[in-house]
Amino acid sequence: MTLFPLYLAICAVPAAAGMMFKPGAWYRDLDKPGWTPPDLLFPVIWAVLYVLMSLAAARVAMQPDNDLALGLWALQITISTLWSAVFFGLHRIRTGAVVIALLWAAVLATTLAFLAHDTLAALMMVPYLAWGSFALALNLSVMRRNPERGYA
Amino acid sequence: MTLFPLYLAICAVPAAAGMMFKPGAWYRDLDKPGWTPPDLLFPVIWAVLYVLMSLAAARVAMQPDNDLALGLWALQITISTLWSAVFFGLHRIRTGAVVIALLWAAVLATTLAFLAHDTLAALMMVPYLAWGSFALALNLSVMRRNPERGYA
Repeated sequence: MTLFPLYLAICAVPAAAGMMFKPGAWYRDLDKPGWTPPDLLFPVIWAVLYVLMSLAAARVAMQPDNDLALGLWALQITISTLWSAVFFGLHRIRTGAVVIALLWAAVLATTLAFLAHDTLAALMMVPYLAWGSFALALNLSVMRRNPERGYA
Repeated sequence: MTLFPLYLAICAVPAAAGMMFKPGAWYRDLDKPGWTPPDLLFPVIWAVLYVLMSLAAARVAMQPDNDLALGLWALQITISTLWSAVFFGLHRIRTGAVVIALLWAAVLATTLAFLAHDTLAALMMVPYLAWGSFALALNLSVMRRNPERGYA
């Protein structure tokens, strides 16, 4: 588990992006579905996901021939850093949906690649995959409900 | 070199951030030093650096026990994604300088870790380290020249 702190430090970068690009008046005024979670839930969920995905990566790092799996992990965390900036920074709802869709695909690929090395590591990615699916659905719903803003 | 396309795909994420958060009227109106490169030079330099750092990572990926080295590479590319958004998106010059300083440290750590595996891979990171030093100096100079804007 020696690389767990490094992977957690990498997760601090999208966390910092999330803290700098946060929901403001623009997000509050959007027409959102009734199943939108309260704002405070998002950082809590992400904190848990960061710990789980870092533990998963640290487990896979102890396996041989893990470069594809850890490369896919690096891809997903880099895409994750982009999302807050695109959605909350640029207010581009449609581009945000594209970024989340790419993130979801990268997380799925990472999970499958982890499965080839370590079952527990793959299981630790499943909550992230579930959250990614939910976040994509939320982003798409917000896009459909705000057609005049979503195509910026 | 089989993982070169994956590493290059990861570099496409900060490249997308750079394309979405670009210099506009705010950047044009900043007081910049005489040695500021023309806007067009930045994407050209980054394109070269992305190819070099992806080749370097692909070389290191073929070595055993490379998890720390490739983890540091993942850290630097994630930090790199954050910078454009902070500087051009939030117009936070001082925070931008902090992000570049962290990026520079991560690139240095990656280069040293690569050196332990493959001399050529480490050499391929040297232009990035040089550019990071220059970009940090530029960011700091812009910060000093625009005190009323730099501390936002």
